[in-house]
Amino acid sequence: MKSAPAEFLEPRRVALSHALVAEGLDALVVTSRANIAYLTGFFGSAGLLLVTSDRLRLFSDTRYTETLDELARGLPSLEVVAAPPGQSSAEESLVEAAVRHAPARLGFESAHLTVRQHVDLKARLAAVECRAELTPTDGLVESLRARKDAWEVAQLREAGRRLSDVAKCIIPNVLAGSSERQIAARIEWELRQKGFDKPAFDTIVASGPNAALPHHRAGERTLAEGDLVVIDFGGMLDGYAVDMTRTVTVGMATRRQRECWMAVAAAQRAAFAAARVGVDAEDVDAVARATLAAAGVAEAFGHGLGHGLGLEVHERPRLSRRRPGASEGPLAAGMVFTLEPGVYFPGWGGVRIEDDVLATDAGPEWLTEPVVEVRAT
Amino acid sequence: MKSAPAEFLEPRRVALSHALVAEGLDALVVTSRANIAYLTGFFGSAGLLLVTSDRLRLFSDTRYTETLDELARGLPSLEVVAAPPGQSSAEESLVEAAVRHAPARLGFESAHLTVRQHVDLKARLAAVECRAELTPTDGLVESLRARKDAWEVAQLREAGRRLSDVAKCIIPNVLAGSSERQIAARIEWELRQKGFDKPAFDTIVASGPNAALPHHRAGERTLAEGDLVVIDFGGMLDGYAVDMTRTVTVGMATRRQRECWMAVAAAQRAAFAAARVGVDAEDVDAVARATLAAAGVAEAFGHGLGHGLGLEVHERPRLSRRRPGASEGPLAAGMVFTLEPGVYFPGWGGVRIEDDVLATDAGPEWLTEPVVEVRAT
Repeated sequence: MKSAPAEFLEPRRVALSHALVAEGLDALVVTSRANIAYLTGFFGSAGLLLVTSDRLRLFSDTRYTETLDELARGLPSLEVVAAPPGQSSAEESLVEAAVRHAPARLGFESAHLTVRQHVDLKARLAAVECRAELTPTDGLVESLRARKDAWEVAQLREAGRRLSDVAKCIIPNVLAGSSERQIAARIEWELRQKGFDKPAFDTIVASGPNAALPHHRAGERTLAEGDLVVIDFGGMLDGYAVDMTRTVTVGMATRRQRECWMAVAAAQRAAFAAARVGVDAEDVDAVARATLAAAGVAEAFGHGLGHGLGLEVHERPRLSRRRPGASEGPLAAGMVFTLEPGVYFPGWGGVRIEDDVLATDAGPEWLTEPVVEVRAT
Repeated sequence: MKSAPAEFLEPRRVALSHALVAEGLDALVVTSRANIAYLTGFFGSAGLLLVTSDRLRLFSDTRYTETLDELARGLPSLEVVAAPPGQSSAEESLVEAAVRHAPARLGFESAHLTVRQHVDLKARLAAVECRAELTPTDGLVESLRARKDAWEVAQLREAGRRLSDVAKCIIPNVLAGSSERQIAARIEWELRQKGFDKPAFDTIVASGPNAALPHHRAGERTLAEGDLVVIDFGGMLDGYAVDMTRTVTVGMATRRQRECWMAVAAAQRAAFAAARVGVDAEDVDAVARATLAAAGVAEAFGHGLGHGLGLEVHERPRLSRRRPGASEGPLAAGMVFTLEPGVYFPGWGGVRIEDDVLATDAGPEWLTEPVVEVRAT
């Protein structure tokens, strides 16, 4: 996995240390893998990170010694500790470091620590008479991650370009006689051929009536002439997720299929045009919904318009209907998200079209190649 | 995803209700996806389960209405509630059900509930003046899952048979000139061809010096004549994981490569022979370690011998070195686990051989086809 260079990692650390000051925290225990990767470039499966005002201290085990040493050489504010597995643990090393640093208020990530881990951490701190007050925090690193820096944007542009290539290879092979699973297998093969490390999620190939089920994966059903087929696939490239959906018909589209497809494509186009810096995420969703309403199919759009993308395939910002008392706030430059309107009719099928977009001060930018311009026919 | 029929689900529920009585609990909130799948046959991504003395109550959302209704028809002790997303939530429905049932002691799974979810659940219960005492539990369902029932054994046998077929297709293609990634892509393609839903974990293809790194995945390195290549792959079939490792040489093996391979294969055979019902898991690990010691390579075996397999790719039992004050206890009939001794020499390479085994009262049974018998040469 490629790690971001220090010139990008260092500003992330500084931004977080400002957030800690604002929260009145002396230090933060980071347990989310994605958050650890964001701050340190470490993508290993076992790691704990202690963030203090001027240092990152990363605790893992000896399986990762080489990787950790290389990261520390690249980032002067990073200290690494590789505990021998079975003898001591990352938790022990973290508690030792916490005692040395003696924070009065030690934050933890409440969405990324189980009750069991919390009890264990408290007990370890008590055992060494550390009096730090364990304080829950929520989304401190995730808020920073919502706006991608130039290095992340470059990663996501490249990943989007390659995912568009996968789509081009796949669409001509969506033919009657193939099973959903066979198409999913072919997509996952193409993802690998284009350099992706793995699918970003379970590939969806939903054909015929299955296309009406947003949670369908890929099953035994054989594609037949006249089917609508919703194909939703994504890839992880060097730690970053991109995500795309295409809906195609097997053979000639019926009039109603074409109308639904055009309504969804138009909703996506309208949302893209609306996705400008400063516009509330919910208002972009509303534009897509209004476009579908004009076509008489708004009721069939049962999910949100999109979600942020980055180190995780679902992250901030969330583009959805406005909820009472909760707003995602305005789009900001550097945000990367999907636009994926869809309509679903039980028993008949469905259409979803999804592309990835970057918000910039100069306006929205497609990261995946959008479907061709809709023309009235 | 195929769900186990009621004749298998019902005894699981009854066994859990006995465990709840033993713990002094009136009800249990189950949040682990694998545990929910085990008890109800529901594999969806959004679900909460409330277990009381005589009922299972499963809360999810309307995306899963059809699936939920079908499960409830098949299992009389199961009630299902599908909340419309955005309007109410599975959490709300669960709390309503908890209030109706009015448990004095309501258990939760401390390893599968985040601190944030715990705070949220407490607040919801307080808001409706439910006085249930939220009580942490640890591994209640996991303990049941450690011994597979006949339906699970049949699933795992079939999955093991298919994974052995994947190995046969792949090994002849491990050739000089391929990259690690290309071989990983081919394995994942074959997994799909054999009916697996997805890889059980990131496929490992570690060649040459990379074979010495147990955490290596599959990278750009091109295989060269004389390489040792460790190939560790697994698949999920109808919700159940199987896992296998083969180590091959590209071209003719050197004497040292052959000796290492034979030592590891012998360690696996010895462990298999020792893996009898009633034997402590740690003692099986010790047999493998002693076999490697006799070959002079015990120091190079840096990890545990194996892990349980089932709805998750790592579950109970753990077969590892004995630790002070902690034992996994004796193997029991129905336990399914890997046997995967390995030796690793930094800079030189490594060998790991892994197969899946079922413990039965009549002795151990291979679920994957083991490597051919080792002969002295």
